[in-house]
Amino acid sequence: MNKFKIALLQTRVYENKNKNIENALSFIEEVSKKGADIVVLPEMFCCPYNTSYFKDYGEEENGLAYKALSQAAQNNEIYLVAGTMPEIDGDKVYNTSYVFNRKGIQIEKHRKMHLFDIDVEGGQSFKESDVLSSGSNITVFDTEFCKIGLLICYDIRFPELSRILVQNGAEVIIVPGAFNMTTGPAHWETLFKCRALDNQAYTVGVAPARDYDSGYTSYGNSIIVSPWGNITNKMDENQGYIIEEIDLDIVKKVRSELPLLKHIRKDVYKIELI
Amino acid sequence: MNKFKIALLQTRVYENKNKNIENALSFIEEVSKKGADIVVLPEMFCCPYNTSYFKDYGEEENGLAYKALSQAAQNNEIYLVAGTMPEIDGDKVYNTSYVFNRKGIQIEKHRKMHLFDIDVEGGQSFKESDVLSSGSNITVFDTEFCKIGLLICYDIRFPELSRILVQNGAEVIIVPGAFNMTTGPAHWETLFKCRALDNQAYTVGVAPARDYDSGYTSYGNSIIVSPWGNITNKMDENQGYIIEEIDLDIVKKVRSELPLLKHIRKDVYKIELI
Repeated sequence: MNKFKIALLQTRVYENKNKNIENALSFIEEVSKKGADIVVLPEMFCCPYNTSYFKDYGEEENGLAYKALSQAAQNNEIYLVAGTMPEIDGDKVYNTSYVFNRKGIQIEKHRKMHLFDIDVEGGQSFKESDVLSSGSNITVFDTEFCKIGLLICYDIRFPELSRILVQNGAEVIIVPGAFNMTTGPAHWETLFKCRALDNQAYTVGVAPARDYDSGYTSYGNSIIVSPWGNITNKMDENQGYIIEEIDLDIVKKVRSELPLLKHIRKDVYKIELI
Repeated sequence: MNKFKIALLQTRVYENKNKNIENALSFIEEVSKKGADIVVLPEMFCCPYNTSYFKDYGEEENGLAYKALSQAAQNNEIYLVAGTMPEIDGDKVYNTSYVFNRKGIQIEKHRKMHLFDIDVEGGQSFKESDVLSSGSNITVFDTEFCKIGLLICYDIRFPELSRILVQNGAEVIIVPGAFNMTTGPAHWETLFKCRALDNQAYTVGVAPARDYDSGYTSYGNSIIVSPWGNITNKMDENQGYIIEEIDLDIVKKVRSELPLLKHIRKDVYKIELI
């Protein structure tokens, strides 16, 4: 059980929630037939990435999209990290990733912890906090292979959080994320490489396909990085998928050859949950 | 006072301490004449990077090399981050970086906090902790331009420490470092880029020139990265120097456009000094 196959679904997002779900279900079936153990959808795979859409496309836990995805995990007997969707909870909206096991049972959910507010001169402007509320929970789930940490997009910019995931046993960090055409080319690869090598864990980023007609253009470039910081696979900007083998022996080998995690000076500094 | 010039001296290290000091002094004079405000030497610039040499080439604080460097800072009226040298303190040896101000007065010193022990199959093996002791102090020094954080080589692999420097006011992080031909090509650039963009600070890495005849071959590639994560200048493997302008308005601009440091969830996690 030291190896498993992970599928990254870089789906296109249409202004039609049902069409987005159907599209996702079709890809899930296809990669499951090819032997994927864990399937990952992108951030906001069923909702255009625009704060004005979040309430309309959103649903409470156990809603329409949720049920379809749970069923797909069960039918295909795969773990499904169901990208993210707007989750309605009372008068609040969260950017939430549900995780289903091979029986379709929800085993975790992560609410995006850091909200993305940016205003770059001549570049991207976006203010998630206008509409969204932020989660406050650390999310690590268990599989028969290893523990897996879960972040959403902007969460990866905070090294503290990835470190906490790994200190809680994660050997793989999965990140549904939609970087844009300003931050994507500038930072996407560097962040996935550096979090991987700092923590000697695999990092996996899954983005929506690029669509220049949408209000917020995703960078695409879904990516897998090894615990040594090498990009082992990366997509271009188009809709599609990759299936890649994760070899947990490489986590052990890197952690043994360069025992970074043992060299953390816990006698001098410490990252703590409040 | 929002701009200053920093000089990176990528000197070659010979098996002759005096020759290494003379070489450094000559470069310091040259870049000072060209207007450098802050001059940085590489890790172990006056001692071959081999644990068996550290005691012989080492000296107590205020020793021969120390005095020559202090004098050079005063003569040239520059800040000097004096790379590192083995510092003898009783029966202990530290890998220490002294910082002198424009009057040649020592205003800080950093003792390498994380010791580099590595054993990569078919690659680099090295065990600093056989001979060296580790420091336990966070090092930030003040100039008329801004506060500057100081790390030594392997220290940069620990995101906690860079974060603490910035939380203590650093806008620039200087790192004398000697990555090797295994870790250099794999990790050098990514680490300097990611620490810069995580902390929205300039990062500056200064390495010895490459020498295939030495027991430990430095990667070279001294580097400056902007707070947006762009490499603004980088050397090749040969002896030489670069002088680059640091523009502190860019630190402010990046921190204002993408206010990452304000988005740290201090209500959820915290990095603390013990």
